[in-house]
Amino acid sequence: MRASRALAGLLARRLARQANPATEGGALAQLQRGLATQGPFTRAGGAAAAARAPWLVAVAAGLSAGLGLQLVGGGSGEPAECKAAEKPAKLKEFDKDEVAKHRSKETGIWVTYKDGVYDVTKFVEQHPGGAQRLMLAAGGAIDPFWAMYQQHNNEQVKGILEEYRIGRLKGGAAAPVADPYANEPQRLPALIVRSQKPMNSETPMELLAASIVTPNELFYVRNHLPVPQVDPAAYRLRIEGEGVRSLELSLEELKTKFKRHTITATLQCTGNRRNEFNRTGRVVKGLEWEGGSISTAVFTGVRLRDVLLAAGLEDDDPEVQHIQFEGLDADMAGATYGASIEVDKAMSPHGDVLLAYEMNSAPLPADHGFPLRAVVPGVAGCRSVKWLGKIVASSEESHSFWQRRDYKAFGPNTDWDNVDWDAAPAIQAMPVTSQICEPAVGAVVEDDEVTIKGYAWSGGGQGIIRVDVSADGGKTWHNAELQKVPQKRGRGWAWALWQATIPLPKGFTGQLELVCKATDENYNTQPENAAPIWNLRGVNCNSWHRVPVTVQ
Amino acid sequence: MRASRALAGLLARRLARQANPATEGGALAQLQRGLATQGPFTRAGGAAAAARAPWLVAVAAGLSAGLGLQLVGGGSGEPAECKAAEKPAKLKEFDKDEVAKHRSKETGIWVTYKDGVYDVTKFVEQHPGGAQRLMLAAGGAIDPFWAMYQQHNNEQVKGILEEYRIGRLKGGAAAPVADPYANEPQRLPALIVRSQKPMNSETPMELLAASIVTPNELFYVRNHLPVPQVDPAAYRLRIEGEGVRSLELSLEELKTKFKRHTITATLQCTGNRRNEFNRTGRVVKGLEWEGGSISTAVFTGVRLRDVLLAAGLEDDDPEVQHIQFEGLDADMAGATYGASIEVDKAMSPHGDVLLAYEMNSAPLPADHGFPLRAVVPGVAGCRSVKWLGKIVASSEESHSFWQRRDYKAFGPNTDWDNVDWDAAPAIQAMPVTSQICEPAVGAVVEDDEVTIKGYAWSGGGQGIIRVDVSADGGKTWHNAELQKVPQKRGRGWAWALWQATIPLPKGFTGQLELVCKATDENYNTQPENAAPIWNLRGVNCNSWHRVPVTVQ
Repeated sequence: MRASRALAGLLARRLARQANPATEGGALAQLQRGLATQGPFTRAGGAAAAARAPWLVAVAAGLSAGLGLQLVGGGSGEPAECKAAEKPAKLKEFDKDEVAKHRSKETGIWVTYKDGVYDVTKFVEQHPGGAQRLMLAAGGAIDPFWAMYQQHNNEQVKGILEEYRIGRLKGGAAAPVADPYANEPQRLPALIVRSQKPMNSETPMELLAASIVTPNELFYVRNHLPVPQVDPAAYRLRIEGEGVRSLELSLEELKTKFKRHTITATLQCTGNRRNEFNRTGRVVKGLEWEGGSISTAVFTGVRLRDVLLAAGLEDDDPEVQHIQFEGLDADMAGATYGASIEVDKAMSPHGDVLLAYEMNSAPLPADHGFPLRAVVPGVAGCRSVKWLGKIVASSEESHSFWQRRDYKAFGPNTDWDNVDWDAAPAIQAMPVTSQICEPAVGAVVEDDEVTIKGYAWSGGGQGIIRVDVSADGGKTWHNAELQKVPQKRGRGWAWALWQATIPLPKGFTGQLELVCKATDENYNTQPENAAPIWNLRGVNCNSWHRVPVTVQ
Repeated sequence: MRASRALAGLLARRLARQANPATEGGALAQLQRGLATQGPFTRAGGAAAAARAPWLVAVAAGLSAGLGLQLVGGGSGEPAECKAAEKPAKLKEFDKDEVAKHRSKETGIWVTYKDGVYDVTKFVEQHPGGAQRLMLAAGGAIDPFWAMYQQHNNEQVKGILEEYRIGRLKGGAAAPVADPYANEPQRLPALIVRSQKPMNSETPMELLAASIVTPNELFYVRNHLPVPQVDPAAYRLRIEGEGVRSLELSLEELKTKFKRHTITATLQCTGNRRNEFNRTGRVVKGLEWEGGSISTAVFTGVRLRDVLLAAGLEDDDPEVQHIQFEGLDADMAGATYGASIEVDKAMSPHGDVLLAYEMNSAPLPADHGFPLRAVVPGVAGCRSVKWLGKIVASSEESHSFWQRRDYKAFGPNTDWDNVDWDAAPAIQAMPVTSQICEPAVGAVVEDDEVTIKGYAWSGGGQGIIRVDVSADGGKTWHNAELQKVPQKRGRGWAWALWQATIPLPKGFTGQLELVCKATDENYNTQPENAAPIWNLRGVNCNSWHRVPVTVQ
């Protein structure tokens, strides 16, 4: 690998954040981390979304400029600063037609970014979003893709690209790419934004513990792509695949032809509490969530089971092992967000999987999947696909990036340079977790006791049976008082809120650690520390939650 | 509480085993621990077992002497040594008729043991097996009860009894009580016996990791009462309760009228690995299991669901929440071992609950429930009731001691003096666990690498997806290779065996700690240490398993 001095500097700064020395292949792993964030697509959508789904009015219109640019390439702006400063004079010029001829390994794989031309043949297989995805941009501009997947827009990724520069585009860059995120809904400023485009924001900690049900406007937002604008009158849900007859259902049909069901369910991002992994000294890649990418709502809709039965799916059809969901949120190539769940969960009369059209008694908000979303209670939020367009009964899991190359956890010994994504199952039910919401980290406590509040939740319908809290870092424990909604054993979809007022060590002043740990119906409990469950994508962080406070 | 010097000495020795100072009420807690071991009954059986179940040929016959003794009292032998040495001369004499008049709080509650007479009025409510159980002996001899529940036969319990001595029995003790354990089956000497009567023995560690399926003769044995001898020709399984019509099924009918099903399932005692709690410095009460009260077999029988459907039970009958099991193993009063499971587990087509008549292709051995037992895969072994006599569909859990006053876990702050048994759910599915079977504790390793073998299992059908092992106490980790039987997600009833050969720290000699931890399909993993999950009954010990070895 050719490493410019500027890139070496970037890498050095990045590596300095790691306590553990980089192992063999560590530099490559760092490069890969640089690109893998919100998870780009591996699947190429064949036709544009607009062509496939006439009710999808926004994506095609909003992105047509971007699609047009894909083959003409170019764009204005300077080459990335690090490289430009080094040897701008030597750069050869290529025109768009010449670039367009390089779309395979045989010819070499070229792309343009702004007015730069890059031969990425050797990089393609290392692309964290998959070679297939990068190949969509081969022979043309990557600018519209980076406008969609804005995690590319940082100095580190630009520095990596500069490594592959072979020249500049004749005639310079074309007009700037239209922003695919131009039509996002309004959001409350109270949300703590971790990524603007796509929108990813968490609920403020002090509001989480305030009530079992999170108001819609404060429910955490985890989007992978621009929010699609869907016309509810034209909307159709399509059901297809093995063991079913293809079916299209309007919103009206869903609401009137199927029984209405309501559940109270907690949804949680797999990356909730990810930043606690970063604080172990080993950096993980992903949105830097604290503990607020979790919320609870009352969802109303129809049972997925009922819709699948209506489509003719039989219980225990041996051909069908997975139920795939496709969202209407799509990229410029029409590829949509996708995920799947196990058919046993989908079809179980006690699985309570909904196709929800209401959230807390209101129509689903745009950020939460209007007009219809899957709600898979007890399962990682990423499987509760929003803006649901299609359901596919299949012998296979979803082929989406997020099902197969993301949202899995490995041991602490597995890193980007040795990960085998097929070796771990896709996260479905998540492990037991809890969080101290009050007091905040670094709070000053002036009494001889302290009141602690928080939430606790476990996946798979395992209700919370106990929360233990400690004011001495886990040496002695007290029971917290739980607040729960009534739930049957095995169907405990909603979190418990909890509260405890516990004495502080007598006469103590200085810093001490408040700790909580929860136990669920299966008596699973949380591991003590984050380091032994560290994993490269920073998912499933469920170690004891620890809050240092100062006692005066 | 009046404490003789001898008893004080006994208590002091007992308390010395605890690292934590006895809290207020700690002495009482110790007394209670002294009695709560294999869990005596709280339910009084009305009629003798023989009268209720003609096919039960052994219990009534074997125990009739004991039942007869209940009201005549007495028995030979010396008073317990500690008290006898102190003030034997002052003891008043009572005859049996006088003792028999004291059977209520109003009259006082008296019992005899050998030739001693005791007023236990104040102790009754503290009896760890429940007041109701102790009341069965009121006005008569406790000798036959202690012959059944042999955990009473130790100096500590005898010392507690002596506290309540009010005199001696006129005419001295009667003949010794017949041994209810006279007809136990033959067992292999390889089993590691933790209690002889009832038989409780674990599988030797080195054999556990040898094969997925444990041979019948080496399968761990966890009995609560004497093994009943059941005539298979006369045997009938009775089904009754809410939502069903009463039904009696012969073994032949079960085998021919219902579809035969086979599952490979791991059963584990809730107390498996209990001794690791004792090694935290806080002693727990119960059989001192290491990690060998777990085994795996191929069970064949009929589905409980099919039998309940045949009895007319409908899915989601709101009246039925629990399926109770009653064993044919009974005490002298005819009260049987009992447990219950959730109806959702019992009726789920994917719950795989069997009524098994074969184990590893042979008829069930006597120690494992001949001729029929429940096998509730993914659930604590205590719910897989052996020698199954009756199934009751009910709105309520089993009223048995083991369902309501045992086999539950609390936080480390809950002890015998403040436990509220109703505050925790009965253990059903158990948490994820793993165990190093080789090398043994204290082994000497003479190479620069070490091969580690063990098992891993999780309750609730959550198959094991990964086992991490460490040779430096958990600082760095390696993946173990898993050996599993094919199982669907959510129906992973059998354990995984695992093996890893990992390098030892370069040039290191001395003692180091091998560690393992497992992760299941829900990505639940094990807590690091036993102390934070310590609980008074020592159940669900699933912290990292740690094996110190010496490197030469």
